[in-house]
Amino acid sequence: MKINVIKSVLDASDALGRANRRRMDEAGLLCVNVLSAPGSGKTTLLQKSLPLLGEGVRAAVLVGDLQTTRDAERLQGVAAQVTQINTGRGCHLSPAQVAEGLDSLDLKRIDYLFIENVGNMVCPAAFDLGEHRRAVLLSVPEGDDKVAKYPVLFQKADVILLTKVDLVGVLEYDFGRVREDLSKVNTAAPLIRLSNETGEGIDEWLNWLREQKP
Amino acid sequence: MKINVIKSVLDASDALGRANRRRMDEAGLLCVNVLSAPGSGKTTLLQKSLPLLGEGVRAAVLVGDLQTTRDAERLQGVAAQVTQINTGRGCHLSPAQVAEGLDSLDLKRIDYLFIENVGNMVCPAAFDLGEHRRAVLLSVPEGDDKVAKYPVLFQKADVILLTKVDLVGVLEYDFGRVREDLSKVNTAAPLIRLSNETGEGIDEWLNWLREQKP
Repeated sequence: MKINVIKSVLDASDALGRANRRRMDEAGLLCVNVLSAPGSGKTTLLQKSLPLLGEGVRAAVLVGDLQTTRDAERLQGVAAQVTQINTGRGCHLSPAQVAEGLDSLDLKRIDYLFIENVGNMVCPAAFDLGEHRRAVLLSVPEGDDKVAKYPVLFQKADVILLTKVDLVGVLEYDFGRVREDLSKVNTAAPLIRLSNETGEGIDEWLNWLREQKP
Repeated sequence: MKINVIKSVLDASDALGRANRRRMDEAGLLCVNVLSAPGSGKTTLLQKSLPLLGEGVRAAVLVGDLQTTRDAERLQGVAAQVTQINTGRGCHLSPAQVAEGLDSLDLKRIDYLFIENVGNMVCPAAFDLGEHRRAVLLSVPEGDDKVAKYPVLFQKADVILLTKVDLVGVLEYDFGRVREDLSKVNTAAPLIRLSNETGEGIDEWLNWLREQKP
């Protein structure tokens, strides 16, 4: 007889993140957790790119914010399903909130589920919500020193989107510094230069998304 | 005989914040906790304004960051005393860290102590570090919707600095929306439009600082 040995390393939060992932695997959808500081362009990126995912491709979004339903309203026209999660004073989305969010969606009718996390470069990085991939945004006006200052966020990224690159020239910005700091914490994730204004990088981001789909 | 009755409502964190304030009161200095999202221009503002505080006015800075001493290095030339506090994975400065920071400074030789908090619009707002005033920065590229989305931060502000206003024109920005959202959460704090590039608003900020001094 085989003896089952369980080496328990998961706390409730991790276990729930795992359960979320299992549900999404069963539904056959790809879930991308989108993280950044406030105002890096998470909602705008989704507004611009979801309509370009392709004919018949169905996207849904779980939007985390302390208060308001402003982001959900902005996404209403472009996503097939949207749920706003208000965290109150909570600084990140939790696996439990995402589990509730999943209850609110028709998972069988989703190809891509985006979780737009609370704008925060620290706390959201620590929680596995059940996502398959993490997209981390860093906007040019935030400065070229942020990778070194918030390394954990960038360590766990599967793709890094450098947003608002149309402001390079208006603002001083050292791409080399960003690349050098990244080379110390994450060499696997592609770095995509992106502008929601000019459209630069949107195709590259869409291609990346398509490649991740099982 | 008078009977002392203590109605205990403080937890250790609040009590320590209070103790920090008492130490700073005794030293006769004014402490300003500076809060914002990452990259709103906290360090640059201090770099620009500390040398303008006036002949013989001594400023010190406690700088909070997850990692690196980059901000402290930037402030070395302009502040009489600088201490970097690295929080590791910590998303805010705690009263205990500030207490240690105070130990590292010669408080008798300080007129203004600035606490540059970790870049984060959520968690730092919840902790009384012992400061006398709170300055909250919001940069134009973060967008004109942030007051409604992060109300707690703005509720507790004594002054609000709208930074990078030189980018208005390059970026779409609705000042009216910011003012309207602020009118719902904080009508007492002055709103100063500021640019570290053009120098707009720096005098107003310096005057505000001088008025707060006991």
